[in-house]
Amino acid sequence: MRQIVDEQLQELILQYESSNVRDAAEYSLLAPGKRVRPLLMLALIKDYGSDPYLGLDVACAIECIQTYSIVHDDLPAMDDDDFRRGQPTNHKVYGEALAILAGDSLLTMAFEVLAQSNYSDDKKIKLIDLFAKRAGMNGMILGQTLDLSYETQPCESLEDLLTMYDLKTGCLLSLALEAAAILVEKDKDREVLKNIGYRCGRAFQIQDDIFDVVKTLEEIGKTVGSDKFNNKTTALAFMTIEEANELVVSLYAQIREDLFELKLINSEIYTMIEYLMSRQS
Amino acid sequence: MRQIVDEQLQELILQYESSNVRDAAEYSLLAPGKRVRPLLMLALIKDYGSDPYLGLDVACAIECIQTYSIVHDDLPAMDDDDFRRGQPTNHKVYGEALAILAGDSLLTMAFEVLAQSNYSDDKKIKLIDLFAKRAGMNGMILGQTLDLSYETQPCESLEDLLTMYDLKTGCLLSLALEAAAILVEKDKDREVLKNIGYRCGRAFQIQDDIFDVVKTLEEIGKTVGSDKFNNKTTALAFMTIEEANELVVSLYAQIREDLFELKLINSEIYTMIEYLMSRQS
Repeated sequence: MRQIVDEQLQELILQYESSNVRDAAEYSLLAPGKRVRPLLMLALIKDYGSDPYLGLDVACAIECIQTYSIVHDDLPAMDDDDFRRGQPTNHKVYGEALAILAGDSLLTMAFEVLAQSNYSDDKKIKLIDLFAKRAGMNGMILGQTLDLSYETQPCESLEDLLTMYDLKTGCLLSLALEAAAILVEKDKDREVLKNIGYRCGRAFQIQDDIFDVVKTLEEIGKTVGSDKFNNKTTALAFMTIEEANELVVSLYAQIREDLFELKLINSEIYTMIEYLMSRQS
Repeated sequence: MRQIVDEQLQELILQYESSNVRDAAEYSLLAPGKRVRPLLMLALIKDYGSDPYLGLDVACAIECIQTYSIVHDDLPAMDDDDFRRGQPTNHKVYGEALAILAGDSLLTMAFEVLAQSNYSDDKKIKLIDLFAKRAGMNGMILGQTLDLSYETQPCESLEDLLTMYDLKTGCLLSLALEAAAILVEKDKDREVLKNIGYRCGRAFQIQDDIFDVVKTLEEIGKTVGSDKFNNKTTALAFMTIEEANELVVSLYAQIREDLFELKLINSEIYTMIEYLMSRQS
């Protein structure tokens, strides 16, 4: 399925006029990525007994949002990253101005893809509203804002940190799962799917926090206070590695319960989440 | 009407959770502006015999797009402006990171406002598609990309320059006029209205080019080659001030003909455009 998503993304972006900004947008959109969110969405559609091809355009729109957020987050004024998905970041290749415009383009493109899709008008409006809410100023953007603010003013409680993780990472995972529910007309499942998305986001972020410490410990070769590795607050500022591991395990237990409630145990989405939670780095 | 638009913008933005990014977005969205595009749209709705209040949400969505584009264009990596609408630019007050995120928020908010509005689903989808097309990678963003590219590689023909003006400035004016047509179910007028928007955009930009030269001539107090004032190519690189003035006059003549074709002579939209074209700076 990943290749089909990539081909559709290519086709969609080539519908725009050739320009510097299209080149820049294409560079990041088609960079080798895991396509976690699109593939989770398509798997869930299949689990619901529908044809995953049904969700192809929505999957592409999600990837547009994910890529725009990466391109803007990598900018010097934000996280200032030089590499992403194994290649130089967008602004390193095209300069900051085009990277800003490429991000703006991909965000706008997501809504155009949704408006142009073949679903009923009613479903399109539900999807567009969902995209704007999960990606916007009460969702992912708020998460990125809180994350940036914790660089200058450390996060003071685990609860605040987890809320930031929910928003920054959970929102787009929820978006993927809820979008599938809209497409197959299982709107009643949206609330539980939203929670699954948030829990996945929390769990992934806490796992990252643990991996960072373990990796740093291995590299430094000695024990260092877990919250002192860099200026960024992580879950390990509030708990031990053991406690963090337990929290991840309990989040996955809740996810399993949620999937059970939705009769989605022994499903592809369950297998995918199990695979994602089993990663070792 | 301007005050009503401002009040609605305030109400819409305060529906988001209180945060740094909401403050930054609000700062630019509610900065004192002429609200040209929203007011053109509301005037046109009235000219068509409908209640302008019908268009309030769409007018606000247009202002969200206009403001996002200003916030991003003012960034140091783009036009690097310090003042806008009589106050310091967004990044000067909130920093670059929040300015980028505030722009992203306002762009996303435009689509949320449209999705949440009270129009029929059919009209909403038409509006969302129009917004994405005029503001996106084949529209306004392409215009800004071309404008930036002409800073390093001078624009070589009047035609290229005018195309850039159409995209950079005309697209959002067309958006305002076409949106009114969608709301009052005059879709057949959209093509002519689109042309009016583009022509207004061209005319405004050429007028700006003329004002810049006249002002600089007054300030410097001597004649200077019209295309040498700064690195930016203007219409005066390809014609004299007299020819530029004639081009503006002919564009307005075409706009009048277009409005006549739509039976919109002696209308509020005509008066507004006449007012805008009569400005002396």
